[in-house]
Amino acid sequence: AVPSFPPPESESDESWVWSQIKAEARRDADSEPALASFLYATVLSHPSLPRSLSFHLANKLCSSTLLSTLLYDLFVASFSEHPTLRSAAVADLLAVMKRDPACVSFSHCLLNYKGFLAIQAHRVSHVLWSQNRKPLALALQSRIADVFAVDIHPAARIGKGILLDHATGVVIGETAVVGNNVSILHHVTLGGTGKDVGDRHPKIADGVLIGAGATILGNIKIGEGAKIGAGSLVLIDVPARTTAVGNPARLIGRNNRGEPVKNE
Amino acid sequence: AVPSFPPPESESDESWVWSQIKAEARRDADSEPALASFLYATVLSHPSLPRSLSFHLANKLCSSTLLSTLLYDLFVASFSEHPTLRSAAVADLLAVMKRDPACVSFSHCLLNYKGFLAIQAHRVSHVLWSQNRKPLALALQSRIADVFAVDIHPAARIGKGILLDHATGVVIGETAVVGNNVSILHHVTLGGTGKDVGDRHPKIADGVLIGAGATILGNIKIGEGAKIGAGSLVLIDVPARTTAVGNPARLIGRNNRGEPVKNE
Amino acid sequence: AVPSFPPPESESDESWVWSQIKAEARRDADSEPALASFLYATVLSHPSLPRSLSFHLANKLCSSTLLSTLLYDLFVASFSEHPTLRSAAVADLLAVMKRDPACVSFSHCLLNYKGFLAIQAHRVSHVLWSQNRKPLALALQSRIADVFAVDIHPAARIGKGILLDHATGVVIGETAVVGNNVSILHHVTLGGTGKDVGDRHPKIADGVLIGAGATILGNIKIGEGAKIGAGSLVLIDVPARTTAVGNPARLIGRNNRGEPVKNE
Repeated sequence: AVPSFPPPESESDESWVWSQIKAEARRDADSEPALASFLYATVLSHPSLPRSLSFHLANKLCSSTLLSTLLYDLFVASFSEHPTLRSAAVADLLAVMKRDPACVSFSHCLLNYKGFLAIQAHRVSHVLWSQNRKPLALALQSRIADVFAVDIHPAARIGKGILLDHATGVVIGETAVVGNNVSILHHVTLGGTGKDVGDRHPKIADGVLIGAGATILGNIKIGEGAKIGAGSLVLIDVPARTTAVGNPARLIGRNNRGEPVKNE
Repeated sequence: AVPSFPPPESESDESWVWSQIKAEARRDADSEPALASFLYATVLSHPSLPRSLSFHLANKLCSSTLLSTLLYDLFVASFSEHPTLRSAAVADLLAVMKRDPACVSFSHCLLNYKGFLAIQAHRVSHVLWSQNRKPLALALQSRIADVFAVDIHPAARIGKGILLDHATGVVIGETAVVGNNVSILHHVTLGGTGKDVGDRHPKIADGVLIGAGATILGNIKIGEGAKIGAGSLVLIDVPARTTAVGNPARLIGRNNRGEPVKNE
Repeated sequence: AVPSFPPPESESDESWVWSQIKAEARRDADSEPALASFLYATVLSHPSLPRSLSFHLANKLCSSTLLSTLLYDLFVASFSEHPTLRSAAVADLLAVMKRDPACVSFSHCLLNYKGFLAIQAHRVSHVLWSQNRKPLALALQSRIADVFAVDIHPAARIGKGILLDHATGVVIGETAVVGNNVSILHHVTLGGTGKDVGDRHPKIADGVLIGAGATILGNIKIGEGAKIGAGSLVLIDVPARTTAVGNPARLIGRNNRGEPVKNE
């Protein structure tokens, strides 16, 4: 039987989530013979979440000249050497299940969410970038952009507990920083104004929600718990717990506080 | 010779469209040897439109772990058991030819329009969802999102005679409903506001036109024949035959009636 | 050693850029064994830039029914018969290095920029279209749209020195014209209003910058050196050296001139 949510305090999140994913995959393989081979190859034949994730990412991101075996070894080594990559992946799985009403299971997120997969692969490219393995980091960024239509510069720093929902068209620039527990919808840009070089991209604090199609440009700060409306063009700092909407965006109110703030 | 448009009353649309497609493919294979093998494998070797479409979709959507043979069998079985999938595909082909001035032939739409192909595959995922084969429906949604950058939840209900033009970045949520003869440009979102669970996505009536980049959020109604301007953010009901533009969208007029309506 | 930028006057741009790319590839293959095979197959084993580019494009754009060998021969023949395709590719490489602070090397652009690759493949499809090989031109457009999420009609005329940054979601219509030295960010649409047939798409003059998510609709003129703000919806002519922002866009000033122009 599939264990219930949330996980018991007594177990590590990773082992609990992995047991959950395997139980879901066994249930789905039993009920849907057409998926049994896929689920066995991608989930059930692997001894751990990092192995399963590495296999799945390698199959998604490989090409005729960048082989899946090479990518698999790279991902396995990265997850093994950097336990924070594993805990961040688990935090993302828990975040998607908690925040996206369309997510029916952990295995659904692991197997089918291109935003989840793009973020995991980005974190590996970020490690490579930090190790000055820039050509490989950039090659990986390019494959993520081709396969998932998600373009995150390897130097960008992304927290954990991230929901990248639908994900198509997300662009995150070189000097952007995204905190923990941030939700980002599709078509969101964290970009530059084109006028600056150097530190030129947005800094997104913890707990921010960025709606579909929002464009946030320049080295500006989006404060903790702020909400950016769908389709907004944000060129100014947004204080914590404040909502910004419109093109160009204006601040329309503070969340959870009742103090209206207006800045047009 | 390629028969002329529209089809004669005496023939069924499907057989007429299929004869048209075969005539176009023969003409193009003769004039362009570089395409002859592709056209033979994808069109000319098949006995019917559903077989050709199943072969083409399976080749587009397969992966190293979700094999084209499995997908081909799934599509063939779906088209065979659900004749409405076939008539909807034919209605879409006729709609694209009628409404898109850039569409030069039925075979151009069948072979090259990722929006057309995404819609046909979505309808199969919707059948699977309705049959409670949810894991396979979600796996198919994921492949459509990867390959075509079109993310339609399997539960969403889509009518027939649909033009999904260019298609990149279209996102349609779980409880959205799209009527018949609707035209949707690229980057269009039929999404939730993030505040609701349950029935939380837009309901689009027949004959609506939704411009590029429009974002329509929440369980709102877009009335019959309404037009949504490019780049609009729509958070309110739009009455029938009315145009909505802007961010946030305001209603600027009724189509075909001359009664100006303004609601800011 | 990697030669310095800009190239010496005494050498042709193409031979200089190609020597630069090879030097970069040798350096990266030496420092990153995981990329050595990829770099050898894609760059170092080829005698010229057009051969390397043809090989890379063919591998990216091929499918199980449109074989890489066929595409490779097509690209090699096109670059050989149309030297302007080669000089335009070189001008694009120089433009990306000059204008995009995130581009670290010519080989990074050649190998990893999907916007650069989409433009090169489009120019080949444009040649095919001009030669009345329309079915093959349209098949190529379709593969570019699938693989890079960039949809450029083969008939559209695109200048040289183009930066298509990030590129996901760019849509350029049949009768659009883009001049030289134009920079186009992701999610940009050069589309029709849906009301016209025939010559119905924008004309973009030299040196224009179009921000992320801008939607430019109709047979309108964007003058030389104009800037279109991110997220703008442009439905009117924009004079030379003028900035347009907003939804709908208004003109807010002339660049490099100090004469404020306002048109709301």
